[in-house]
Amino acid sequence: MDETKLTSGEDALIARYFQPLATDPGAFNLVDDAAILKPSADDLVLKTDAIVEGVHFFPDDPPDTVARKALRVNLSDLASKGAIPAGFLLTLALRSADDAWLAPFARGLGEDAARYGCPLLGGDTVSTPGPKMISIAAFGRVPPGRMVHRSGAKPGDRIVVSGTIGDAALGLDILKGGAVAKALAGDVAAREMLVGRYRVPQPRNALAQAVRDHASAAMDVSDGLAGDLAKLCAASAVSAVIDAPGIPLSAPAAALLARGTVGIGTIVAGGDDYEILCAIPENRVEAFAAAAGQAGVAVASIGTVIAGPSAPKFLDAQGREITLKHLSYSHF
Amino acid sequence: MDETKLTSGEDALIARYFQPLATDPGAFNLVDDAAILKPSADDLVLKTDAIVEGVHFFPDDPPDTVARKALRVNLSDLASKGAIPAGFLLTLALRSADDAWLAPFARGLGEDAARYGCPLLGGDTVSTPGPKMISIAAFGRVPPGRMVHRSGAKPGDRIVVSGTIGDAALGLDILKGGAVAKALAGDVAAREMLVGRYRVPQPRNALAQAVRDHASAAMDVSDGLAGDLAKLCAASAVSAVIDAPGIPLSAPAAALLARGTVGIGTIVAGGDDYEILCAIPENRVEAFAAAAGQAGVAVASIGTVIAGPSAPKFLDAQGREITLKHLSYSHF
Repeated sequence: MDETKLTSGEDALIARYFQPLATDPGAFNLVDDAAILKPSADDLVLKTDAIVEGVHFFPDDPPDTVARKALRVNLSDLASKGAIPAGFLLTLALRSADDAWLAPFARGLGEDAARYGCPLLGGDTVSTPGPKMISIAAFGRVPPGRMVHRSGAKPGDRIVVSGTIGDAALGLDILKGGAVAKALAGDVAAREMLVGRYRVPQPRNALAQAVRDHASAAMDVSDGLAGDLAKLCAASAVSAVIDAPGIPLSAPAAALLARGTVGIGTIVAGGDDYEILCAIPENRVEAFAAAAGQAGVAVASIGTVIAGPSAPKFLDAQGREITLKHLSYSHF
Repeated sequence: MDETKLTSGEDALIARYFQPLATDPGAFNLVDDAAILKPSADDLVLKTDAIVEGVHFFPDDPPDTVARKALRVNLSDLASKGAIPAGFLLTLALRSADDAWLAPFARGLGEDAARYGCPLLGGDTVSTPGPKMISIAAFGRVPPGRMVHRSGAKPGDRIVVSGTIGDAALGLDILKGGAVAKALAGDVAAREMLVGRYRVPQPRNALAQAVRDHASAAMDVSDGLAGDLAKLCAASAVSAVIDAPGIPLSAPAAALLARGTVGIGTIVAGGDDYEILCAIPENRVEAFAAAAGQAGVAVASIGTVIAGPSAPKFLDAQGREITLKHLSYSHF
């Protein structure tokens, strides 16, 4: 509803920052109205996730980390579904065409697109009077019928997670100046590691093939391990028992938990982990661990799927059930 | 960065309003992390377009019209590329989960998804402190290599548009209380028609097959006929001469133009038309018009493609070139 303009700043912005990223022939150099994905025998896995300034990232987060987060939260979903990235569409809502923000944003986006083999295929750039927002629709491929679902977990399966849990929630606490920030006031390295885990997820796309080969059910941990496990169990019509001390933690997270700076609730309900949570049949756990090792990703078995409709239980070192005040993050 | 919650309002919102729309088996009832499009021999056409409250629609626009506009601006692109809709992903950014807004929004979205055969496959719902924003990624299918491009127009081709041009710009002027609102103060029917054209585009998906069969180049008119024609010509490395009096106008638009309430510039640079603009080889114009007639869509030949790098010219009834102050809408 702005006035029209003789020259299109939007076109110039796209040409300057995003055309260099559109290396895939199906992107038509971003000068057409749409992109193409060529047919293949695979199923196409479709995912969209958006991040909003002030909600999913801070206004002063480095722009390249904002771009990486926007793409990686989607790549993480593709990984957990066993899919190989094929490309993405970008929607970018900005108050103004600010070169100081756009240049590093586009650079970070392009680097990650190359790193994960997920080219920019097209997009839309719109003005907004509000917070910046980046919405990405990402596409991946799996052999027909082989997408790994949330449903499919069976009693007796092991519950396995990749990487470490809780770091991003602790990093967020640091950025908000909370208890973790105070506890780690003298430990720059730990603070930077945790903040980095919040700002720049490490999607486990290297695990996609292993998940597809071995998992009976999988999803990524984005809203908190406890809540996401509850969703996986509900979709599979099962329950689970988790050995809380077996949840893999980074050294700073383990120290903060041991010192009582944070409770286990912050670790398992904080969200933004972007690790893979999956159910692996007992007789495949070894093969899955071996494949994960080959892929260079640590995985840990943290519990067992059991029958029944009850919510998953988290047990402490003494086998007592831990009461969780919250399970996960929710927008509404 | 809100506090986590025990129960997920986001999940409840999705279950209540959007699961009923997710009728396609590839949507997995919106309870998984991703959707699937099954393989086919066709190319998959990918498009994303977003609309922002206060930019592309008014805060008090009826929610069902906001939903329809969000989907239809994408459907319009698919139509202009000759593609048949296959489904879409929805990103919805809201300040709160307001039932009074969400219920009609979801109803309008579902009705249009059914009408255009473009099912909801998945999405993301996020909170924002800012304006509402709806970003849709839409998918369509064309036979391999048959997507209609902006490039491909050849000297001698006729320039053809569907429907009528300029109505949406006049509708926007009415909503802003401009000169058109005053001129039509006594004509409710005309005001409602023009406002309707702004709020609810009429994408020409019925023309997709005819465009694919006959057009040498095509795009939809979203940012203004003049600017979009300039883009089509630039992509095709041609120019064009347009007979401005031949541009199809609705009766209210023609009357407003004749009375001098608006100039031709408002008509051809206003945007939001969501009509199809295409180049049709001379020897196919008749067949294209016949196919359009069969599809129930009016089309009008408004000019001719000529060789050369100059910007397209709009000529008046006396053959004099019309100077346009603006060509189209730009966000930046």
